[in-house]
Amino acid sequence: MYISEQLGQFGSQFHRAEVAPEVLHHAKRAIVDWYAALVPGSVMEPTPLLEQAYADDLGRGKARLALGRMATTRTAALINGTAAHTAEVDDIFKEAIYHPGAPTISAALAVAQQQGASGLELIKAVIVGYEVSTRIGKVLGRAHYQYWHNTGTVGAFGAAAAAAYLLQLDALRFTHALCTVATFAAGLQQAFKMDSMSKPLHSGRAAEAGVAAAEMARQGVTGSLDVFEGGSGLGVAMSNGPEWQAVMDDLGQRFNICAMTFKNHACCGHTFAPIDGALVLQQRHGIDWQDIERVCVETYAPALAVAGNPAPLTAAQARFSIPFVVATALRHGSVRLAAFAPERLQDAELRALMGRVELKVHPELDAQFPGQRAARVTLHTRGGQAHAYLQPTRKGDPDMALTDAELQGKYDELVVPVLGAQKSADIARVLWALEQQAAVDML
Amino acid sequence: MYISEQLGQFGSQFHRAEVAPEVLHHAKRAIVDWYAALVPGSVMEPTPLLEQAYADDLGRGKARLALGRMATTRTAALINGTAAHTAEVDDIFKEAIYHPGAPTISAALAVAQQQGASGLELIKAVIVGYEVSTRIGKVLGRAHYQYWHNTGTVGAFGAAAAAAYLLQLDALRFTHALCTVATFAAGLQQAFKMDSMSKPLHSGRAAEAGVAAAEMARQGVTGSLDVFEGGSGLGVAMSNGPEWQAVMDDLGQRFNICAMTFKNHACCGHTFAPIDGALVLQQRHGIDWQDIERVCVETYAPALAVAGNPAPLTAAQARFSIPFVVATALRHGSVRLAAFAPERLQDAELRALMGRVELKVHPELDAQFPGQRAARVTLHTRGGQAHAYLQPTRKGDPDMALTDAELQGKYDELVVPVLGAQKSADIARVLWALEQQAAVDML
Repeated sequence: MYISEQLGQFGSQFHRAEVAPEVLHHAKRAIVDWYAALVPGSVMEPTPLLEQAYADDLGRGKARLALGRMATTRTAALINGTAAHTAEVDDIFKEAIYHPGAPTISAALAVAQQQGASGLELIKAVIVGYEVSTRIGKVLGRAHYQYWHNTGTVGAFGAAAAAAYLLQLDALRFTHALCTVATFAAGLQQAFKMDSMSKPLHSGRAAEAGVAAAEMARQGVTGSLDVFEGGSGLGVAMSNGPEWQAVMDDLGQRFNICAMTFKNHACCGHTFAPIDGALVLQQRHGIDWQDIERVCVETYAPALAVAGNPAPLTAAQARFSIPFVVATALRHGSVRLAAFAPERLQDAELRALMGRVELKVHPELDAQFPGQRAARVTLHTRGGQAHAYLQPTRKGDPDMALTDAELQGKYDELVVPVLGAQKSADIARVLWALEQQAAVDML
Repeated sequence: MYISEQLGQFGSQFHRAEVAPEVLHHAKRAIVDWYAALVPGSVMEPTPLLEQAYADDLGRGKARLALGRMATTRTAALINGTAAHTAEVDDIFKEAIYHPGAPTISAALAVAQQQGASGLELIKAVIVGYEVSTRIGKVLGRAHYQYWHNTGTVGAFGAAAAAAYLLQLDALRFTHALCTVATFAAGLQQAFKMDSMSKPLHSGRAAEAGVAAAEMARQGVTGSLDVFEGGSGLGVAMSNGPEWQAVMDDLGQRFNICAMTFKNHACCGHTFAPIDGALVLQQRHGIDWQDIERVCVETYAPALAVAGNPAPLTAAQARFSIPFVVATALRHGSVRLAAFAPERLQDAELRALMGRVELKVHPELDAQFPGQRAARVTLHTRGGQAHAYLQPTRKGDPDMALTDAELQGKYDELVVPVLGAQKSADIARVLWALEQQAAVDML
């Protein structure tokens, strides 16, 4: 049996599966975190530009954008999928170097609203989408991430699986939805090496591609069953010929949605261990930022390839600059949305501190990537002292998880400024009890 | 200046360019040939399935599907783009191993109808789309074609350029349309190694992606300017790091739309030299198909990789089977749509002849690919005679072009059975005088 067929069988049979309370709770945390990313992203570019470009699909349909506008299903998936990846605060499955929430939940909610699905069905669709896509991403591995942006490529499978589940496709059609979306998968790393709006659009296109592929499969459109493992398939075209069968290890037993990273900083996840390590050192030794002579950050190579920008000019570039965010953390104590305001980007003293941040690849930490995301930070003071610390993981990673209260705090910080306190609280209440909702059209 | 910027400048300035009568005529031939592919494809799967999946976008909008239904711009591009590549009779630019018409003209017509553009503006948009995309495809070269389906990947640039032209984007926005679509480009070779509906969908997704990227760019969405030549850009992710500057050679002087191949057979273009060679031998030596003991076909390697299927079971597979189409040509004298009817696929005598077709790579002919598409055919008769012929090019290639009358004959054969004689003739009349039409909403 092809991998596509094995995954199609799993996904289509999940309607009958019982969900353990722990898995259900983790899925709700993922949806809360998705909302915390979606809402601030909805008022940032490119989302308002997409609403203009897709105006003919708004004000109709059964799905809904974050701020309440009605939209057709595919367009809601596209726009919410873009918005949820824009503020760079969305979740991560680190073994797949991938943000599952933005493409998967955006597609799932749009189709759930179209179908009149219950809260529990939405949760189960999200679990299926996360499971199928994180496993594909893990198998594609580091060779894929060299050129491809997993949230675009792997995300398309999350969206397709969630949509196929909610459309109640049988095993064969579910399989064809996955095969069709495999040949729609796109998103180049280069697209966010320069300041551009492509990165969140990758997530939006993935969400839309997944919904489209599932809707096509429902009508009988077929894909190529061997598109994963074939001789010119996804595995060789977009990676180094991975071992596909590993996708199936413990499938249905162990759920990856229980091992998400929720971002504690509003920037690229590759910058987190340096930020966390710098803050630990600063607090432990009571170092004033003005006394810092030099900061040395040693970490894994892809972190420097993606987030090594020494001289960011824009907010988008600054989110991918370890020097910028480490300097910001040391000077301001946190790296949230305010960190990327125009006055911060132009702050001469911050820029001076940035210029004293040195980056190096640490071979042992590099070897641990992507399973472990660590950094070794050394602060050199003007007084001639040097303090070093190995930050072994990131706050927000599953082994140093945000509590439910911390996650709610993140949600409040990000959602309230856009929706107001009352509406934010109303939605949070619905989300934390989502399995009891008969419908999801209020979201 | 990045390649994207150079192409964006060319495309945006083409509004002011004079088009030589010869170029204009070749563009009209391409549009006539596109229609000849579009109309029969519109009544074949997956097009009717797409019309069901996208029902909420039909019956509104200013664009039109082949059989007359109104549709939104992006959905018209998607559905017509799919239909035009389904019957496998659409045009080829062989140096780019690419079918430009299906994605490019489908996008161009949809946007022209939305914008109320004139016939001449539609023609110029088609020229721009062909020029930008064929040059990108040629530079990506054979390494790209190993894993990717150029009509999906390269086609997205044809659609984006044509749409950007018709939306009258300035140089910067035209450039961003190309950069955005670069990171949407998709379509795996594996997707049509097995019987599936993905191949024509690649063309449809490319058409839709191009329109979407241009509409986004119009609103100010930006892409990454170095997405072609960057260190993890399209050139290294999807090929072997090509020489991008060659894209600009003679740009605006020499027009690739004057060097299209128009298909004379209703199947994969890689099978044409074997078909043409077999027919030449059969006629020259007066050989009855029943007297044929064995057929030896020697040609370039990609032809066998793509169209080497020795035992096709379905019409889609048969179109990619040199044994099937060569046997059909020898037995029936031509390979048009009737060749793939169910009774032909099951014909025992045809199958027996197929089984006597041998395929080999011919190293010298392989070295000439993709610029030359040649085959050496040898017919061995039951009487013990062997006749060999080197077919140096394909009927329909620019060096053995279909005349306007032959092209009209192809159009009539493919369009009349679907639209009827009167409507087919009316449309043909409009197309051959397209530069004189004030609007294109009748198409």
